[in-house]
Amino acid sequence: MTISLPTYKDVEAAAGRIQPYVKKTPVYTSTTANEMFSAELFFKCENFQRMGAFKFRGAMNALLQFNDQQKAAGVIAYSSGNHAQAIALAAKLLEIKATIVMPEDAPEAKVDATRSYGADIIRYNRYQEDRRQIGQQLAEQYGYTLIPPYDHPQVLSGQGTTAKELFEQVKGLDTLLVCLGGGGLLSGCALAARHFNPGCKIYGVEPEAGNDGQQSFQQGKIVRIETPETIADGAQTQYLGDYTFPIIRDTVDDILTVTDNQLIEAMAFFAERMKMVVEPTGCLGFAAAHQLKPELYGKRVGIIISGGNVDLERYAQLLLKNEDLKG
Amino acid sequence: MTISLPTYKDVEAAAGRIQPYVKKTPVYTSTTANEMFSAELFFKCENFQRMGAFKFRGAMNALLQFNDQQKAAGVIAYSSGNHAQAIALAAKLLEIKATIVMPEDAPEAKVDATRSYGADIIRYNRYQEDRRQIGQQLAEQYGYTLIPPYDHPQVLSGQGTTAKELFEQVKGLDTLLVCLGGGGLLSGCALAARHFNPGCKIYGVEPEAGNDGQQSFQQGKIVRIETPETIADGAQTQYLGDYTFPIIRDTVDDILTVTDNQLIEAMAFFAERMKMVVEPTGCLGFAAAHQLKPELYGKRVGIIISGGNVDLERYAQLLLKNEDLKG
Repeated sequence: MTISLPTYKDVEAAAGRIQPYVKKTPVYTSTTANEMFSAELFFKCENFQRMGAFKFRGAMNALLQFNDQQKAAGVIAYSSGNHAQAIALAAKLLEIKATIVMPEDAPEAKVDATRSYGADIIRYNRYQEDRRQIGQQLAEQYGYTLIPPYDHPQVLSGQGTTAKELFEQVKGLDTLLVCLGGGGLLSGCALAARHFNPGCKIYGVEPEAGNDGQQSFQQGKIVRIETPETIADGAQTQYLGDYTFPIIRDTVDDILTVTDNQLIEAMAFFAERMKMVVEPTGCLGFAAAHQLKPELYGKRVGIIISGGNVDLERYAQLLLKNEDLKG
Repeated sequence: MTISLPTYKDVEAAAGRIQPYVKKTPVYTSTTANEMFSAELFFKCENFQRMGAFKFRGAMNALLQFNDQQKAAGVIAYSSGNHAQAIALAAKLLEIKATIVMPEDAPEAKVDATRSYGADIIRYNRYQEDRRQIGQQLAEQYGYTLIPPYDHPQVLSGQGTTAKELFEQVKGLDTLLVCLGGGGLLSGCALAARHFNPGCKIYGVEPEAGNDGQQSFQQGKIVRIETPETIADGAQTQYLGDYTFPIIRDTVDDILTVTDNQLIEAMAFFAERMKMVVEPTGCLGFAAAHQLKPELYGKRVGIIISGGNVDLERYAQLLLKNEDLKG
């Protein structure tokens, strides 16, 4: 099957489409961070996006392109994370019925948040059932349109508007660091970065335990791994997608990895120095900056913070763990 | 002794003076908060101010008015909190020598932060020595100018620029909620609020355990209390000042109080829903909104978040306590 890959034009069209609904998120700087790296760091704060993550952009872009029949039937998504809430909120705003397939053991806070946007929740046992199968079956049965979390041209084009906005807010970026899970954010942002600054170095950053993206990038084909154990729950994906992989392969300069402890350290930095709550996955980009330190010297560096949705109890425990790590 | 009280003109002059140095902090909104109160809430985020709190405004305004002799001799301040860091940073930027008198048992993180701005630290035993006396003695001995944390016309005029900025960013505010410790922020902001909207209701908010401001307001004279036990460490002041009290008495509509648990709840709301780290004292204004709920219906409400400087270990423990409280 040949697929037609999105280009920057699709990112641009997405930006115009979703603009009335999404927040133009701020770009923050930190004197301390700049001094640490002898560079200018620009943090694109999607933790301040509606529902707390960039996922709202892609969801909105997809739902805004529904035809009347699709709108009447409704949307279905499977996710235990930010994509679920993004689809639920986008559907609410557009008055489309949303069904979200979530694991039985998903945190109640996430289930409640998704339900509060008016979505129907279908619970499944993730040890015995396959969420994709459930999603597809319900889609067929009721005529729902299934929107996957990352491997979808409209979704990734929507995510790319994050970098489009950043490059419009900050001129002349030399380097861009983007969190990498399934590659929706990275592929979309890479399209935008290449458009604005063809010479910009683009890095995707994964958790060390889940380096399927790095392996895929190095081997030139999609590598599948077991669900990785990492605190970066938004990057516990097992493989890149048929849309996201080729764009990443052709557009990104390299894929880096960081440890969970490095994520915790970055999370504490954001809290202490920048007064921001960032979820573990959102810390990937900044956590990788340390290994690029010599290269970043004197440069203008864009870092995408993907989201801020983290259970507060877990967040508190991670901050305490950081105190332990400091010893 | 008759003193000449600052007016809005002094706030305006301060704004012009400090503008090249201070951040114009953002005003954040939250759909969830608006729905909770059936009102429009506007949060003025001084936690994103330089060094993490509004205190930098007043310190900068005072130091920018030093004459050559004062600049050559240096500044001295006594504080274990945000005022110390504010004076230290302002002095660093203006190349003025700063001496800060801090208790021996002050958290090392705060001492380090103050020292990192290049200030000399003098430690004292707070059970045996009086910091004011030490400050005044050193000031006399070395010709330092002493800048007190709140009871100073230039300091309070500087703090008032917070509300000036807010009223310029958001038109037609009906109500303003301001954290109250020694009254520097409240008195300055009240001057600005009255100027922009004479009909605006202005509330100061204190911790319940330290309601000296409320007592003073009700009795029409400065009431002194023992150092209150509260997590709002920026509001552990024992009395209002000779400058701040008369302005508050004549300009503010009422003083409200909140409990520590209400502060913790507000702090968790900011983290969970708005992805912001706010220190306990900075939560005073929003924590008091609940008791005004009927009055706020349909109104445009300004809430000043004073700062975000909180030891991360303590912050994490307070978030965990909130989970217990919900339990």
